[in-house]
Amino acid sequence: MRHYYTYSEYLSDCKILTEQIQDRFDAIIAIARGGMTLAHMLGEYYNIREIYTINTIGYEDMVKLDQIEVFNIPKIKKAQKILIVDDIVDSGDTMKRVLELLTEQYPYAIFKTAALFYKPSAIIKPDWYVQEATMWIDFFWSVDL
Amino acid sequence: MRHYYTYSEYLSDCKILTEQIQDRFDAIIAIARGGMTLAHMLGEYYNIREIYTINTIGYEDMVKLDQIEVFNIPKIKKAQKILIVDDIVDSGDTMKRVLELLTEQYPYAIFKTAALFYKPSAIIKPDWYVQEATMWIDFFWSVDL
Repeated sequence: MRHYYTYSEYLSDCKILTEQIQDRFDAIIAIARGGMTLAHMLGEYYNIREIYTINTIGYEDMVKLDQIEVFNIPKIKKAQKILIVDDIVDSGDTMKRVLELLTEQYPYAIFKTAALFYKPSAIIKPDWYVQEATMWIDFFWSVDL
Repeated sequence: MRHYYTYSEYLSDCKILTEQIQDRFDAIIAIARGGMTLAHMLGEYYNIREIYTINTIGYEDMVKLDQIEVFNIPKIKKAQKILIVDDIVDSGDTMKRVLELLTEQYPYAIFKTAALFYKPSAIIKPDWYVQEATMWIDFFWSVDL
């Protein structure tokens, strides 16, 4: 079973997400690639110019890799409160590793996490999420083109 | 006059863009924020994992700044052929400055540029673009949420 996640459903979820997030942030970090579209739109919405990406590779052709590879940890200028976003927190391995690495590197910053989808079996729960994932999701940015 | 650029128009333009781009790239660099959604989708389409962002500030509340601020120049792993993407090449100042800085830092890499919109008055012409910009564009990622 696969769920085709359209732009229209995404937009509606973004509205729900921003209603949930009452905090204000200085910067957004997108977990690439999945979080990039969301980070872009949230950056525009909150008028945050400091938008970074962090690269992770956890899947190869829909198969989960044993080891999460994280690279390109962003050089954050002076932001103190930072929102990390991804499309989905699935196993949670990626978000957990990213959060660990960023907290190590920026011990004085406050990191919060948001995702569109979350699987309750994940080892980490994002601070905000919209839907529980029950099947593989075909995000519009992956399949529309 | 403002042009509301919908997701559907964007998708159609992405198709045109990928038909134009016959080269293959090892990495994509998004000029943030504007190029992030496009870089995400192209990354998925070409299955490129190395997606970076570079931060630039050239506008403040629709007013062009005198100086383009560029920060967070990505550490590129080993990519040799790199596509730089932005939503619009307007004055061209941003794309020109980004290209200069990246070429300085990575003299052996080949950089090509793509944008959805291009103004013929710009000081640099992207290698690929879809539409000529004749008015202010309200991109869906800026206004839909």
